[in-house]
Amino acid sequence: MENRGYEENGRVGLWIAGAKGDIAATLMVGKQAIALGLTSSAGITSDLPPMNRLPLIPLKDLVVGGIDISTQPLAASAESLYRKSRTISREVLDGALPALACIEEDILVEPRLIWKPSDPQPADTTPLRQLTDRLQAHIRGFRKKHRLSHVVAVNLTSAEPEPDQAPEHETLEGLEQLITEDRKDLITPGVCYLYAALREDCSFLNFTPNPGTTFGGIAELADQQNLPYYGNDGKTGETLVKTALAPLFAYRNLRVLSWEGVNLLGNNDGLALDDPDNRTAKLRNKGQVLNNILGYEPHAGVDINYVPSLGDWKTAWDLIHFQGFLDVKMTMQFTWQGCDSILAAPLVLDMARLAEFAARHGESGPMHHLAAFFKHPIEVPEMAFHTQFERLLRYTETHLAQQSETLQDQEVSVQ
Amino acid sequence: MENRGYEENGRVGLWIAGAKGDIAATLMVGKQAIALGLTSSAGITSDLPPMNRLPLIPLKDLVVGGIDISTQPLAASAESLYRKSRTISREVLDGALPALACIEEDILVEPRLIWKPSDPQPADTTPLRQLTDRLQAHIRGFRKKHRLSHVVAVNLTSAEPEPDQAPEHETLEGLEQLITEDRKDLITPGVCYLYAALREDCSFLNFTPNPGTTFGGIAELADQQNLPYYGNDGKTGETLVKTALAPLFAYRNLRVLSWEGVNLLGNNDGLALDDPDNRTAKLRNKGQVLNNILGYEPHAGVDINYVPSLGDWKTAWDLIHFQGFLDVKMTMQFTWQGCDSILAAPLVLDMARLAEFAARHGESGPMHHLAAFFKHPIEVPEMAFHTQFERLLRYTETHLAQQSETLQDQEVSVQ
Amino acid sequence: MENRGYEENGRVGLWIAGAKGDIAATLMVGKQAIALGLTSSAGITSDLPPMNRLPLIPLKDLVVGGIDISTQPLAASAESLYRKSRTISREVLDGALPALACIEEDILVEPRLIWKPSDPQPADTTPLRQLTDRLQAHIRGFRKKHRLSHVVAVNLTSAEPEPDQAPEHETLEGLEQLITEDRKDLITPGVCYLYAALREDCSFLNFTPNPGTTFGGIAELADQQNLPYYGNDGKTGETLVKTALAPLFAYRNLRVLSWEGVNLLGNNDGLALDDPDNRTAKLRNKGQVLNNILGYEPHAGVDINYVPSLGDWKTAWDLIHFQGFLDVKMTMQFTWQGCDSILAAPLVLDMARLAEFAARHGESGPMHHLAAFFKHPIEVPEMAFHTQFERLLRYTETHLAQQSETLQDQEVSVQ
Amino acid sequence: MENRGYEENGRVGLWIAGAKGDIAATLMVGKQAIALGLTSSAGITSDLPPMNRLPLIPLKDLVVGGIDISTQPLAASAESLYRKSRTISREVLDGALPALACIEEDILVEPRLIWKPSDPQPADTTPLRQLTDRLQAHIRGFRKKHRLSHVVAVNLTSAEPEPDQAPEHETLEGLEQLITEDRKDLITPGVCYLYAALREDCSFLNFTPNPGTTFGGIAELADQQNLPYYGNDGKTGETLVKTALAPLFAYRNLRVLSWEGVNLLGNNDGLALDDPDNRTAKLRNKGQVLNNILGYEPHAGVDINYVPSLGDWKTAWDLIHFQGFLDVKMTMQFTWQGCDSILAAPLVLDMARLAEFAARHGESGPMHHLAAFFKHPIEVPEMAFHTQFERLLRYTETHLAQQSETLQDQEVSVQ
Repeated sequence: MENRGYEENGRVGLWIAGAKGDIAATLMVGKQAIALGLTSSAGITSDLPPMNRLPLIPLKDLVVGGIDISTQPLAASAESLYRKSRTISREVLDGALPALACIEEDILVEPRLIWKPSDPQPADTTPLRQLTDRLQAHIRGFRKKHRLSHVVAVNLTSAEPEPDQAPEHETLEGLEQLITEDRKDLITPGVCYLYAALREDCSFLNFTPNPGTTFGGIAELADQQNLPYYGNDGKTGETLVKTALAPLFAYRNLRVLSWEGVNLLGNNDGLALDDPDNRTAKLRNKGQVLNNILGYEPHAGVDINYVPSLGDWKTAWDLIHFQGFLDVKMTMQFTWQGCDSILAAPLVLDMARLAEFAARHGESGPMHHLAAFFKHPIEVPEMAFHTQFERLLRYTETHLAQQSETLQDQEVSVQ
Repeated sequence: MENRGYEENGRVGLWIAGAKGDIAATLMVGKQAIALGLTSSAGITSDLPPMNRLPLIPLKDLVVGGIDISTQPLAASAESLYRKSRTISREVLDGALPALACIEEDILVEPRLIWKPSDPQPADTTPLRQLTDRLQAHIRGFRKKHRLSHVVAVNLTSAEPEPDQAPEHETLEGLEQLITEDRKDLITPGVCYLYAALREDCSFLNFTPNPGTTFGGIAELADQQNLPYYGNDGKTGETLVKTALAPLFAYRNLRVLSWEGVNLLGNNDGLALDDPDNRTAKLRNKGQVLNNILGYEPHAGVDINYVPSLGDWKTAWDLIHFQGFLDVKMTMQFTWQGCDSILAAPLVLDMARLAEFAARHGESGPMHHLAAFFKHPIEVPEMAFHTQFERLLRYTETHLAQQSETLQDQEVSVQ
Repeated sequence: MENRGYEENGRVGLWIAGAKGDIAATLMVGKQAIALGLTSSAGITSDLPPMNRLPLIPLKDLVVGGIDISTQPLAASAESLYRKSRTISREVLDGALPALACIEEDILVEPRLIWKPSDPQPADTTPLRQLTDRLQAHIRGFRKKHRLSHVVAVNLTSAEPEPDQAPEHETLEGLEQLITEDRKDLITPGVCYLYAALREDCSFLNFTPNPGTTFGGIAELADQQNLPYYGNDGKTGETLVKTALAPLFAYRNLRVLSWEGVNLLGNNDGLALDDPDNRTAKLRNKGQVLNNILGYEPHAGVDINYVPSLGDWKTAWDLIHFQGFLDVKMTMQFTWQGCDSILAAPLVLDMARLAEFAARHGESGPMHHLAAFFKHPIEVPEMAFHTQFERLLRYTETHLAQQSETLQDQEVSVQ
Repeated sequence: MENRGYEENGRVGLWIAGAKGDIAATLMVGKQAIALGLTSSAGITSDLPPMNRLPLIPLKDLVVGGIDISTQPLAASAESLYRKSRTISREVLDGALPALACIEEDILVEPRLIWKPSDPQPADTTPLRQLTDRLQAHIRGFRKKHRLSHVVAVNLTSAEPEPDQAPEHETLEGLEQLITEDRKDLITPGVCYLYAALREDCSFLNFTPNPGTTFGGIAELADQQNLPYYGNDGKTGETLVKTALAPLFAYRNLRVLSWEGVNLLGNNDGLALDDPDNRTAKLRNKGQVLNNILGYEPHAGVDINYVPSLGDWKTAWDLIHFQGFLDVKMTMQFTWQGCDSILAAPLVLDMARLAEFAARHGESGPMHHLAAFFKHPIEVPEMAFHTQFERLLRYTETHLAQQSETLQDQEVSVQ
């Protein structure tokens, strides 16, 4: 692994698919609020020791751009955080608006870039190859305009339906062919973002449950480009709690009979998931978690209901029915009331910094050390949150040790 | 470390202070129900891999005896599990009664063996030395009668008030002197059990918050006798959940503003804790947990309320108020509805097996690998449940590796 | 209204459709446990003042019989209360078994008496008329054997799919015709019970959501026979709480934005409701409640999930998201953990007593004073629990006043 | 009852003790936000039918003034609603600030007007008579300045300790004497407000648990002045839910074994209640509720804990442990997350309108029809929320009927 050229003080791009959504707007406003000293950096994992001792790119050197299907101005997305979600004050909003106006110039608006694999006549009739070319051109322009040393692309769009599996997904050649043949039944928008970003030398993060990152063809492309990537499906609420709590039952030999969960949410993500076509991948990701940690399959239902009045404030209730000594049945229940974007946005910043760090150090392929950030971490079998987090700690410590050796070597050679 | 003599197929004693309480009765009934095939072994940690590959003493070879202040027959304690707690069926009760009748013969009844350090005229006027002699004689008799290869003593009594700290606690000589001088203001019943048990070559487990295990004089005695011991305060409910959940907030850099908990319980433990004198140690143990895991001190209130109708079914409600990105405040709450004895009893069996195993292998002093079982694990700084549990895993793996080497050596020498 | 002949000290029949289900078994065991002094009469509304001053039939004078599709003995149903639901002790079970053996003789077993309107070839090929004849004969025999002064019939079976509406339902002539023509697509088992019972001069209670009680043809038959009847769908859990709580929001002008509920249950009722065909009526009954009390339609989702491990212990969680002064959004949530049969059984006893009382006093048609017992009370518009309960209080007071007048008249005439 | 002179279109004063607290600031901002069309009138009971058909004073004709111990500007109180409680938007705050500046001129600041009966040397050395004179002068000035047809005084201060009971409290002469003799051990600030307001011909509402409204001397004074008044202790959260839910258990004959509640709050009210001296009256009011509704005394604990991070967002958790048929124990729990000021402020507006209406119609003494607004409604025995609310409905209907008769009479006389 050869290190990618990297200029000190260079700036790094964060190219977001879904750049006008709640998570993206929260990320942009939050980044600016931190810069203005209007908020703490709570929620940002990479500021915790020992990660804060890695030479990660400072937040202020992240330049944001991206793509969205919405034609409304970015300011409207931010204003809705103030008015609807009530997560930011007027002062924070006002402080962030100038920065948002700049970012807006780097957002490509493609209102029709959304289709379902099952749709015989997608609204977007642009051929796939033309779309990926357009995406690539936009990323290229973004990189050039801001003289970015690297670009991290991240998918923050809503859940989309899964296409059927096809052998063409498993090779780069197959993927190229599907794109060339405009097979919108097998290539979803999320795959286009992924393909275009890797082609343009971006590392990639899939914060959605949408397919692509596990295709063999994508792995081949990332390998060829020597790029790191990771996913799927950011872990921000109920599943996060599940992966922290389930080990308790496993380690105490308390047999989980049923683990039932209901998720109520009213944001765009909730609206998308209200369509059963879109929830398949999400529910599968949520389901696998328990079997892995417990070693057996308890009865586990997960409901996702769209409740408009809750907006971005996701409320999840879980009931855990378990059996202890003498087969006595007991229960635990929890309610999680968190704001989805507030929980998700800082993780995207964390991972953008870590992805750039990995790319800078010539690391390619799935970034297993990011497992703790995802519901369905690629190639990582363990689901317990603390075990996943230890991967990040070990990765960090390995790099810190190398860094310290390098410093010592340099000191030696200086002497 | 020289291994203690240990006969294959030897039986091991479990001498319980508080032998007629709910936990003890549940332990005895459960042990018997497992033997009769009336229940699974749910709740028993030492049956989980890899611990189940250690040559631990089988449950059936544990012989139970002990001491209690209650004059009611053991059968009445067990019957209350059936009638009040509804944790066992009539069939399980009936199946266990003959075994309980046998155990009853090995329970010393000392109705007045309870006093407060602040009490100028304790009900029990027996001099301390006479008491410890009596306890030692009982343990000796128990061991002899059943030809036990080892005895593990465990304190399962209710919370008691703490005596003032005194320099005499810190040396064995000082302890001996306090006992000889009948200083009931500085020596509590719990210390007598501990002293007598170690004197009689028992390993010791303190499942209560009561003092003694951290006295220098006790460490000296254990060291002199080459005995393992551990405590304090079995972790079975709210604190267990706390130590599993708090790392989630730490690892996500979510700042806990307040973690408020209320514990409702109606058993004898609850009655004892209803007296503020008795809850000091308990509340301290519950409080330390968060500071350690989070690295700062959130507002953290813990109420313990006596609610007779709940009996042994402890209900705990916790509210976690935390701050994320952009300083947005969010909440999580959980309700834990568990039966205390059902949660506690199997841990006592686990630890008895592990203590005997340690003693058999000549290990002495605090058994840090049992940290996950206690609210306030002696000499173990880390409070996160999974980190504590990893101590047990490492301990087990080390022994399994040694065992495997020994086997290989034996095979070699046989050849 | 002419009073039906009624002998003092006469016994009254309670003929149950679903006589081997959890509710029926609980009712029978509980009635016997009360008779044996093994339990209090908690849960029985008719024992509360002022209802307890009405000359209602004593519980001991209720003779139970009925019909079921299950071939397992009644003792097995009762034993499952002891083993699975853990709602009764061995002593209560043993005390009730002799009485259950007697009741068993009065239970008609019809294993195939279940079909769906949509089923082209129902398992039960017996023509409907033959079925209703058989049901009538059984009721006649039951009445004669025990010399019953009156029989109250009650439907406690599981939810069944609704047939399409048909004009024939609305007249007695039409109903007769459907039965004669064996129209199993328009006549469900629940309608057969209702028809046969009214024909045999029984008052009728429909504790299920199943159709029939609102058919014009049934009203005509009840009128012709001068019989009281009521339904639908016993109110025992989440909806009960809803109708007690919703007025709070109405009276405080707190605007309910969303009222989301999830019901987890694992009994036969839950299994039946797991089939979407069977839940239509149930969900409709649950939904109407809020609109009526609040005067507008909030977002209101109701999930019913089958969770086998919970058995008869229904767990419901509701989230109420509401808006107060300055349009501030606030939340309330509740968890209800109740045993369905335990909540339902005493209501059936209450209503049986009140139905017999009504019949004895020559009252016929819908018993509006029983509105508080049902999710969907026939012809009663108000849904607030306290308003419904006041109907029962007023009814009781009217009868008490009449009774007192009659007594005075008698005293006068005696003088 | 002779009607007080009342000019059509006259304006009415609302003189608030505690005019800079959270409730008062919320009331003022909300009143203004409604006037500006920035919010709905949610939370205002008197806008519900049939109350909205009474000729109540419009909100815009209420002129606010009062007294407070705080020297900070009213704008700071309002700003904290925006910054800390996040209950209002910047636009609402900005819209209200001019009105607040006007109100500020009518607020008397008395920083030392607070003392404890047990305090031998209160900070405020002003003699009581001088204080009440000063309060009376302020009210007089307020009335005159704004040409108010009537003034309603309301106490919104924090909980204060109770003085010992004294016979002097029970007569007006005694009260006068205590004031003249400067008995700060028997006369609290709350009594001064009450005395001064009644002397100045104000009707009075005691939204606090503080004493005074039940003194015989106060009743005498109100009677002499022909003034209506009412209290005590506004019902806004846990107790409100309790009084709506407890009838459910009573009407179903479900025996409540324990009803345990914990209240977490972080506002000034919480800080005041953190001092045990201040919580006596509050806890008593909360306790009486259940006994009254249930007819027996269940185990009922109420904790009130100060949790600063929650601010004005009170979180209450209640566990209800109850026994049903066959003495089976079941549970219900609820969590209430409401903003105290948001819940309280509209009730004050409601009652101010209703108090003015009563005064205008010459009604004097305790306004029993306001029972539903208080935890401890004076002279009203029934505690069930719906029964209390029916008092308001009946009162309203009586007035509407009178009004309709008067109109008819007028029509007749006009003819």
